[in-house]
Amino acid sequence: MTTDIHSKLEKLAALQKTLVNGDFLLTWKQDEATLRAVLLGAQILEDMVKANISTRVFDTGLGLSIFRDKSTRTRYAFRSGCNLLGLMTEELDESTSQIAHGETVRETATMIGFLSEVIGIRDDMFLGEGHAYMKEVSASLDESFKEKALGHRPAVVNLQCDLDHPTQAMADLAHLADHFGGLDNLRGKKLAMTWAYSPSYGKPLSVPQGIIGLMTRFGMDVTLAHPEGYDLVDEPIEAAKRFSKESGGSFKQVGSMKEAFAGADIVYPKSWAPAAVMRERTRILRARENAKLADLEKQALANNAKFKDWECTEELMKGTKDGKALYMHCLPADVTDVSCKEGEVAKSVFDRYRLDTYREAGHKPFVIASMIMHTRFGKPWDVLKNLVAANKPRRPV
Amino acid sequence: MTTDIHSKLEKLAALQKTLVNGDFLLTWKQDEATLRAVLLGAQILEDMVKANISTRVFDTGLGLSIFRDKSTRTRYAFRSGCNLLGLMTEELDESTSQIAHGETVRETATMIGFLSEVIGIRDDMFLGEGHAYMKEVSASLDESFKEKALGHRPAVVNLQCDLDHPTQAMADLAHLADHFGGLDNLRGKKLAMTWAYSPSYGKPLSVPQGIIGLMTRFGMDVTLAHPEGYDLVDEPIEAAKRFSKESGGSFKQVGSMKEAFAGADIVYPKSWAPAAVMRERTRILRARENAKLADLEKQALANNAKFKDWECTEELMKGTKDGKALYMHCLPADVTDVSCKEGEVAKSVFDRYRLDTYREAGHKPFVIASMIMHTRFGKPWDVLKNLVAANKPRRPV
Amino acid sequence: MTTDIHSKLEKLAALQKTLVNGDFLLTWKQDEATLRAVLLGAQILEDMVKANISTRVFDTGLGLSIFRDKSTRTRYAFRSGCNLLGLMTEELDESTSQIAHGETVRETATMIGFLSEVIGIRDDMFLGEGHAYMKEVSASLDESFKEKALGHRPAVVNLQCDLDHPTQAMADLAHLADHFGGLDNLRGKKLAMTWAYSPSYGKPLSVPQGIIGLMTRFGMDVTLAHPEGYDLVDEPIEAAKRFSKESGGSFKQVGSMKEAFAGADIVYPKSWAPAAVMRERTRILRARENAKLADLEKQALANNAKFKDWECTEELMKGTKDGKALYMHCLPADVTDVSCKEGEVAKSVFDRYRLDTYREAGHKPFVIASMIMHTRFGKPWDVLKNLVAANKPRRPV
Repeated sequence: MTTDIHSKLEKLAALQKTLVNGDFLLTWKQDEATLRAVLLGAQILEDMVKANISTRVFDTGLGLSIFRDKSTRTRYAFRSGCNLLGLMTEELDESTSQIAHGETVRETATMIGFLSEVIGIRDDMFLGEGHAYMKEVSASLDESFKEKALGHRPAVVNLQCDLDHPTQAMADLAHLADHFGGLDNLRGKKLAMTWAYSPSYGKPLSVPQGIIGLMTRFGMDVTLAHPEGYDLVDEPIEAAKRFSKESGGSFKQVGSMKEAFAGADIVYPKSWAPAAVMRERTRILRARENAKLADLEKQALANNAKFKDWECTEELMKGTKDGKALYMHCLPADVTDVSCKEGEVAKSVFDRYRLDTYREAGHKPFVIASMIMHTRFGKPWDVLKNLVAANKPRRPV
Repeated sequence: MTTDIHSKLEKLAALQKTLVNGDFLLTWKQDEATLRAVLLGAQILEDMVKANISTRVFDTGLGLSIFRDKSTRTRYAFRSGCNLLGLMTEELDESTSQIAHGETVRETATMIGFLSEVIGIRDDMFLGEGHAYMKEVSASLDESFKEKALGHRPAVVNLQCDLDHPTQAMADLAHLADHFGGLDNLRGKKLAMTWAYSPSYGKPLSVPQGIIGLMTRFGMDVTLAHPEGYDLVDEPIEAAKRFSKESGGSFKQVGSMKEAFAGADIVYPKSWAPAAVMRERTRILRARENAKLADLEKQALANNAKFKDWECTEELMKGTKDGKALYMHCLPADVTDVSCKEGEVAKSVFDRYRLDTYREAGHKPFVIASMIMHTRFGKPWDVLKNLVAANKPRRPV
Repeated sequence: MTTDIHSKLEKLAALQKTLVNGDFLLTWKQDEATLRAVLLGAQILEDMVKANISTRVFDTGLGLSIFRDKSTRTRYAFRSGCNLLGLMTEELDESTSQIAHGETVRETATMIGFLSEVIGIRDDMFLGEGHAYMKEVSASLDESFKEKALGHRPAVVNLQCDLDHPTQAMADLAHLADHFGGLDNLRGKKLAMTWAYSPSYGKPLSVPQGIIGLMTRFGMDVTLAHPEGYDLVDEPIEAAKRFSKESGGSFKQVGSMKEAFAGADIVYPKSWAPAAVMRERTRILRARENAKLADLEKQALANNAKFKDWECTEELMKGTKDGKALYMHCLPADVTDVSCKEGEVAKSVFDRYRLDTYREAGHKPFVIASMIMHTRFGKPWDVLKNLVAANKPRRPV
């Protein structure tokens, strides 16, 4: 274990990457070395917890979160990631606060920033708005820091926006690195990111967008598949095209799950709403045309129903590499005959990979903690090295 | 103080008891030495706080709670018990999480377990279900730990289920040990656990069940009294019978408060709903037959009203040992002319024991902290001994 | 920096002030030296954070809050102030607790006090009740401590009541001390505390009351201005009169914003409801005469509308000292053309001072932390001195 930690610490130090006084909003805006550094940081923190070495760097300090959508896993991951570093967490509850009273974003950003090291935000429900909101918070913090209304610049970490879900995609990357024995082994692996049927409508696009935008950077052959009309937004598609060229991998789009699964090493079947539906949904909600929302939902569900055969079945799994592709999901999955009558994945397939999806999720607290460390310190590698050297027990054994 | 701590530490070490990688769900499933160890642990932690010695064992770590019913005292006790040990607390809020979306218990158990030392659960409203839910969470954690989806096995601590309320019963035991000068002095003491009238219906059965299941283990003469039909469930009744024989105490059931109070050293008058009513309530709620719920409540209240004379009055108190039995209650009590017109206890009786009931409640944070320590460490006695030896101040004076 | 801290530490030690085992409820019940000590403590804590010196004094412990009204800023300030000192925060949520079930205040006070160092309370909506509630909690803690149901006496800190908003007023004082180069430089400065128009009704009176009750103690010339009928309650008015005489400052009341602004060094234009309206509102809510509430609101808004010219405009600002008075606000402000059509302050005025109002707010976490320290320790100056001497880094750099 310790040898392993030291070799990772050396690799991390060699990268010399920091995001100090910056944010982590979109993976495709970060250079590859930074992503490698964040991943290494997460792996080192995981190793430290296994070796019972304290990861606490902050004596006091706050991690603030704002959840504009429901969350169990990411909320817990943010809180436990903050706690790993010694930060107390608080959530801005917009219903019991005075935010509804016409308060501006920039004011609130400063008010919750005075003693916060990080502000984690989930705002994924409104296409065209979530990322914009995070940028606004970010700009407000910049201004207040520059003008000395804030004594330091808290980081913003994207806990899922309309464009990307970087803590999920990076946790997925950590899972793949674990599963295949290292990032370098991902080169040439075929990943199928495919739409799948769900009895609900309106699931965010951020997971598939995050996956194609990130996995194309490590030489993987990424295939995106969805029924006609279930388009993603352009920005991550363009990023995936560009990155696949740069990394020596590939990116293609196909029209069937079967085609995407053919020979795949990894499959990621998941429901999402068409970008056009999500845009119309945002417009309706803004205009408060609530009657139209029911119509939109009805239409969207009717359209979904045409594609019930987009289910990750045993039959389809047989077409993957040796019939044994790694199944991935960000959870919760719509499992046929478990959580719904007809869903994203057959029960027997899901059951085989269920514990794998738990392991996949288990990386998220560490990814978030690593993102926080990289945004807080000029030399995160030294901070981690000092913690390992101090070798303070995390708890008695 | 310090001498006292050291003698308790020696007794604890002699018991050699640990629940490491296990849970604390029902007192009657624990052997007596374990209960003595948990009680000693709680007393040592209390002594340490009085002596301003730090009880912090965790550098980082989380205590998760799930409250499926309202709670003020136990919620605070869980949080302060976790904080005593250095754990940050978080509550899984099922309304803002995605749990309602068909997520399975076992998945959630793992998702909130990654960096948690303990998961505290209150699920007391549905007879036949609360304990079953905790067992399901427990089994899920076992599986994920065995399959390495979790790096450690978080403990489940029962913060009140349909069968038992072990943190309350153990705090009550600590109160009795305090009041009578030690556990051994409880031998031969007469305790009356009796039903009492309340203007509400549907109060859980877990407190009386927990009391008869625990107090019969220490040689006490326990009498249970309730009006006809207000039966408890069988499991704790059977446990009480068995334990009273083993411990040299006694357990009997009588039909009037007066008879139960006669010569009692301790009285615990408290309202609860008949097991049959609670079972029907669970059935109705499951079947969503909401109209029937109002009928059930009406019937139950009408039946309750027949037993308004089950009130702990001065007159009844005169019949206790020297007229001075110790009055106990888990709070909040329905006090006649204070919180209601006709309730469980007369104002003058309650007033005389009010501060005693506060002292009784004050043991709970320490009982919970001791339960956590016993489920986390192979040698909890050594962990406590090391803390006392370190003698780090809890705070400046 | 360090020199500065040491000189402040010496001043603080010279004051020899502590509130140990007491509360911080109303500034006008504290002597001037205590207020100076709390302010110095806050400034020292700010300096320590800037110098990256750990301010953590508690190894474990809780800071409890009860918010009976919405709050963003003060809630965050309380939490971050507690965190600065090492306290984990918890909020008593009266909706998910059993408080609605007839539980008495004194019982709850004890139940949430067992391991709490401080209980922060906001109860500002009911004139004649908020301060009374805090006194009731305070008396309950006194009794339980005296009777040994509590092992220590937690402090109550007023996070805004019907009479005073001491954490706001003290943060405002810290802002003025910063802006004018020290408390002594406030002598002779002219401050205009004036009513201002808002499209809402029912804003608490605690801010203007807190400002006139505090600022008159440091030799300032304080003018209070409001339309006829918008009276404050008597207690702080009387305090302001008394203090202004004692401090060599002055206190007067005028009937126009223009008159109050004339030659002012500082202006604090802010909406509040007439005391008579707030008293009637409390009566209606107590009597559950909900229909009358709408009438009261309608009347109050109609009355407000007569005074739309009470807006802090550029024109009015020209009348202040050199046209450059410092504008203050507790936030959120009703800014004309930003948060409402017609409000308390013109957009261009607010924009010029916006970052100043952020700096003003930034003192609050430190003021709260200093209040907590003064209520917890017999010699808070020594505790701070020891922290500075220990010079433990708050976080890696």
